[in-house]
Amino acid sequence: MSEKAAVLVAGSWGTALASVLADKGIDVNIWTRNEAQCQEINERHTNERFLPGVALPSKLVAVTDMEEAVRGASSVVIAAPSSAAREVACLLKPYWTENMLVVHATKGFETESLKRISTVISEELECEEGRIVVLSGPSHAEEVVKRCPTTVVVASLNDQEAAKAQDLFMHSYFRVYTNRDMLGAELAGAFKNIIALGAGMSDGLGYGDNAKAALLTRGLAEITRVGVEMGANPLTFAGLAGIGDLVVTATSKHSRNWRAGFMLGEGTPLEQVLSSMGMVVEGIRTTKAAHTISEKYQVQMPIASQIYHVLFEGMNPKTAVEALMGRDRKTEMEMMSIETWEQWHS
Amino acid sequence: MSEKAAVLVAGSWGTALASVLADKGIDVNIWTRNEAQCQEINERHTNERFLPGVALPSKLVAVTDMEEAVRGASSVVIAAPSSAAREVACLLKPYWTENMLVVHATKGFETESLKRISTVISEELECEEGRIVVLSGPSHAEEVVKRCPTTVVVASLNDQEAAKAQDLFMHSYFRVYTNRDMLGAELAGAFKNIIALGAGMSDGLGYGDNAKAALLTRGLAEITRVGVEMGANPLTFAGLAGIGDLVVTATSKHSRNWRAGFMLGEGTPLEQVLSSMGMVVEGIRTTKAAHTISEKYQVQMPIASQIYHVLFEGMNPKTAVEALMGRDRKTEMEMMSIETWEQWHS
Repeated sequence: MSEKAAVLVAGSWGTALASVLADKGIDVNIWTRNEAQCQEINERHTNERFLPGVALPSKLVAVTDMEEAVRGASSVVIAAPSSAAREVACLLKPYWTENMLVVHATKGFETESLKRISTVISEELECEEGRIVVLSGPSHAEEVVKRCPTTVVVASLNDQEAAKAQDLFMHSYFRVYTNRDMLGAELAGAFKNIIALGAGMSDGLGYGDNAKAALLTRGLAEITRVGVEMGANPLTFAGLAGIGDLVVTATSKHSRNWRAGFMLGEGTPLEQVLSSMGMVVEGIRTTKAAHTISEKYQVQMPIASQIYHVLFEGMNPKTAVEALMGRDRKTEMEMMSIETWEQWHS
Repeated sequence: MSEKAAVLVAGSWGTALASVLADKGIDVNIWTRNEAQCQEINERHTNERFLPGVALPSKLVAVTDMEEAVRGASSVVIAAPSSAAREVACLLKPYWTENMLVVHATKGFETESLKRISTVISEELECEEGRIVVLSGPSHAEEVVKRCPTTVVVASLNDQEAAKAQDLFMHSYFRVYTNRDMLGAELAGAFKNIIALGAGMSDGLGYGDNAKAALLTRGLAEITRVGVEMGANPLTFAGLAGIGDLVVTATSKHSRNWRAGFMLGEGTPLEQVLSSMGMVVEGIRTTKAAHTISEKYQVQMPIASQIYHVLFEGMNPKTAVEALMGRDRKTEMEMMSIETWEQWHS
């Protein structure tokens, strides 16, 4: 009997991860609530709304019944939008068994509680956080389904679970590294979307590659500083889930966060940006979360703060990006906030 | 009497830096040996070979005589290719006075000696290295001459000299930060061109944004590790001269290093790549230097080593980039080489 896995839900990233598993010969059920999408995946082997023009592996089976999706699976992969993660985990609970590996690939926080997704899932499954594995890194779904070489990190408090996730996904075109800093991997994956929005705004304003590179450099320093303050390892931010994912999100046309920022930079109102995307833009929710987190942890997030002004207080993107260019600091080490790094290593 | 500065030589970066100074109202002489180029800059206010289609400030005066270029200048900016830096500094020596600020903006090493450019210049001027300031960061010349917002770092062993360079260049569209780690700024600026070549190869092979982001992440870890081994501060590599410059060089069509790598990835032979560029590709020389440095310091540079094989030993770029995807390591912290960071901070 071959290995079985379930992927919840059939967005672009869930579909791409399910395709990797199907390519490995694993029997994959992808769960969706949408009857029409379910039928499309099973009959036409496409998922046009989320991955237009892509032929999916025929081994990939879509189901709308959670029990059927999870039955006999040794692994469950949760790739829901951050807003749906709790509900999906709650629906999974009756059919989840202690021996099932749980990997989540959602980049964001729960909106009201500001909890990380691993916390949300472990609460719903009533298990330890160490049972959860986070999958993150520079990985546009559009490239993964085309079998372009891709490298990701799987992070867990529990080395054995991380190793299982590594075995599950490792494939010729899909390289998987382990990391013990689950907190850092989740924070980096979530916060980087804010910086990608800012990079998109800068591009939308026509500021060029020099300005964007400066913004990314400052942005990485900012999210590393906050991450370290919250207990993460700064090296995780220097790795695939940090720099890697930031670069791919901020410099690629595939990125929804970059595109949303670009449209805002061009002067498109937020409502119009959101309605034209047709998919969730995690960075917008995460900006709201960061605003609260920066107050709670008393740590400055100048870039996230300017983007918050643009998104929710009607500030002109030009004013925001100009402020981001940073007129106040004079030495680079101030910008990098050397003290937090030294603190970590002392 | 207004401030005077001299810029040596009239390549794309020298011309762009001279334009910033001219925009600030400084009397700038740009020195070139090429009579025709000198005449073009003075009469048509263009430098078509290096900055096609750009109108230069009329305040910018080109001269072919070194004495005339430097006479009365309080600052000299050396922006020569790495292969010409010693000769230019030697020509400057008779007219250089102790009170002149010396800024260099050359990214590379002297080919045979593997000396840094600040060492080369201080030897020729017979001054302390602390007299030299390095200017680096994400700054395509093509964008600077169009007055796109740009952020750079000036690094010197001497805070006063760094502050003078900051004052000299700081302008509304040109932000300048200081840094004390001159070694790190020079090493990052030079080594990043190797990684940009690799990123170009990956793109030329059609590997996509996911693969490139993974390569940049590993590449930054690699050049940081070597830099730290040579005595640099890892935070400089996390700053404008490191990540910032790496991102802009590896993701922008303006970059000669990226373009050279792209052509190699597509299968173009090295000689043809070099002849079609029409300008120096510093990353190619730096790859040779890195090969020797990694042996001298006994530090592994897997990416630089693969690129060396492609450039000088006829290896197929596909074989090299596949090796770079890294089939050997399993945990991300091995990839990041955490021990060198901890060593720095212990």
